[in-house]
Amino acid sequence: MPELRYNVITREWVVIATERAKRPDQFKRKEERKPLPEHDPKCPFCPGNEEMTPPATFVLPGDSSWRVRVTPNKFAALSYEGERKRVVQGIRRTVTGVGLHEVMVETPVHNITTARLSDQEVELIIQTYLHRFNFASADARIEQVTIFKNHGDAAGTSLEHPHSQMIATPIITSQLRERLSSALAHFDEYGECIFCRVLSQELQEGTRVFLETEHFVAFVQFANLTPFSFLIMPRRHMACFAEIKDAEAADLARALRRSLAKLYYGLTDPDFNYVLRTAPGEYSGVKYYHWYVSVIPRLTKMAGFELGSGMFINVALPEENAAYLRSVNVA
Amino acid sequence: MPELRYNVITREWVVIATERAKRPDQFKRKEERKPLPEHDPKCPFCPGNEEMTPPATFVLPGDSSWRVRVTPNKFAALSYEGERKRVVQGIRRTVTGVGLHEVMVETPVHNITTARLSDQEVELIIQTYLHRFNFASADARIEQVTIFKNHGDAAGTSLEHPHSQMIATPIITSQLRERLSSALAHFDEYGECIFCRVLSQELQEGTRVFLETEHFVAFVQFANLTPFSFLIMPRRHMACFAEIKDAEAADLARALRRSLAKLYYGLTDPDFNYVLRTAPGEYSGVKYYHWYVSVIPRLTKMAGFELGSGMFINVALPEENAAYLRSVNVA
Repeated sequence: MPELRYNVITREWVVIATERAKRPDQFKRKEERKPLPEHDPKCPFCPGNEEMTPPATFVLPGDSSWRVRVTPNKFAALSYEGERKRVVQGIRRTVTGVGLHEVMVETPVHNITTARLSDQEVELIIQTYLHRFNFASADARIEQVTIFKNHGDAAGTSLEHPHSQMIATPIITSQLRERLSSALAHFDEYGECIFCRVLSQELQEGTRVFLETEHFVAFVQFANLTPFSFLIMPRRHMACFAEIKDAEAADLARALRRSLAKLYYGLTDPDFNYVLRTAPGEYSGVKYYHWYVSVIPRLTKMAGFELGSGMFINVALPEENAAYLRSVNVA
Repeated sequence: MPELRYNVITREWVVIATERAKRPDQFKRKEERKPLPEHDPKCPFCPGNEEMTPPATFVLPGDSSWRVRVTPNKFAALSYEGERKRVVQGIRRTVTGVGLHEVMVETPVHNITTARLSDQEVELIIQTYLHRFNFASADARIEQVTIFKNHGDAAGTSLEHPHSQMIATPIITSQLRERLSSALAHFDEYGECIFCRVLSQELQEGTRVFLETEHFVAFVQFANLTPFSFLIMPRRHMACFAEIKDAEAADLARALRRSLAKLYYGLTDPDFNYVLRTAPGEYSGVKYYHWYVSVIPRLTKMAGFELGSGMFINVALPEENAAYLRSVNVA
């Protein structure tokens, strides 16, 4: 019989379709990705084409050109210029669309992906995230900062050159507000961070943990919504990403690179998103929230049931996913 | 400057990307759909192939065979047999995966779609929804019933033959729970149904309404999440779909068929989902909730930002979408 599992962090139920579950190798990419050049003269993110993007807001310089380069998104969803103004009129609420929407070009190399970068290169990306997160958080108009990566068509990107994005909004989204509230409710009732509790239980059971580094643990959630999604969670309690220390950032790079390499080699380079889920900067230090990275391979489509109920049917067993990822050897 | 708009029903913020907005006709389907036969001997939903599916649970008979046929989903996400049992252990909660997962074959004709059916044919589909909704709601193990349709690849279906599905779950999803709670909070504060209020405001402003029938109004929401999504809402206050009267069901068929025809002819048969959003059966009669049909054309992909924040960037203006749909003439 299938099993419904409850995600205590998001308060979502998921159907784990035990009997319909596919084998891990059935999720491997079927078609070859088209081979890409190391440098594409038409790519706006390739070195030499810097004039194709708005001027950089942050650069980590390299020997020849740069190693990481951040620019405003040319097709920004939000405007950096302008005041935050809220209009409340009856049941209507609008806010001016001010905020930051930046592109973080992760490497000068056009045809590479996180899994094949070095730990040092990924560390530069993490350091860039931290810099831009702090920059955006210091802007009085900003309430929430979302840093994410789209890899591949199914993940919603058309640009192949490895890049992440940051969108900083003048409001807190309902999703984050609900998670903050439910984590606070748990803290009030049990006197513990719900995330710390989940992490300690996962470490104790071990069946869904597939990678451990000094400061981070990568695991498939007990109530995982989609095949091969996983979290990378810091062992140390931290509400906000901005609280990360240098040694932890270096270790996160290693955990992120290695866990993505397990996806890359285990599932033949699947399309994926990852997102940094964190409390806003001003919540740094609170005892009830805990930041983490959520990695979501895009192996299935959302259909009417998922859209209409908010509930997922996961055709992969979390424990099998973890065992499979554990078995993929990466450097 | 872009505008952030707040959806008072779902409490979600959306970025309306006013400056990046595409023209309505840019959302038209580009590739031709492959032509289909009227009858496919290999299709499990075509007449004559009834033995390819589990035995029917409900049939509306027709002259030759049947007009609408409901069967358990052969690859059901939930098991109809079994007891609902909840296990609570520390922070873990699981429930046995019992429930109903049915396929409702909407017509014997393989190569047709709702937009091209007659009002009478669509009425039979609505009557079938109502029958199955009531059947599932009467099951003491069931807490929530979701009726939905997936049309086309991007909407998550591989079977071409027109069909809807019903999934009845032994829990209430967090999405519905939150909407019930926030609608109740609005009622407590203002003494009105938030949905009735939205509907009356939309009718008064008129700019986002594109279709009106005797009992229903189709409109694009003020804070619409994705291009060309819309709601079909009953004018009369009803918390639960089960409260619908016969004349209203006939009129819903007309509103649904005509609004989908506007999509079909206006955007060249886009992939779409629709879902019946309703309070559970036991909430029939409550003053604070209001059922409706939500139609979601699948014209854009969810990327890392949407997954990671729960917030959408809509590259279409709700008012322009409504004007465009209004301009598409349908019978």
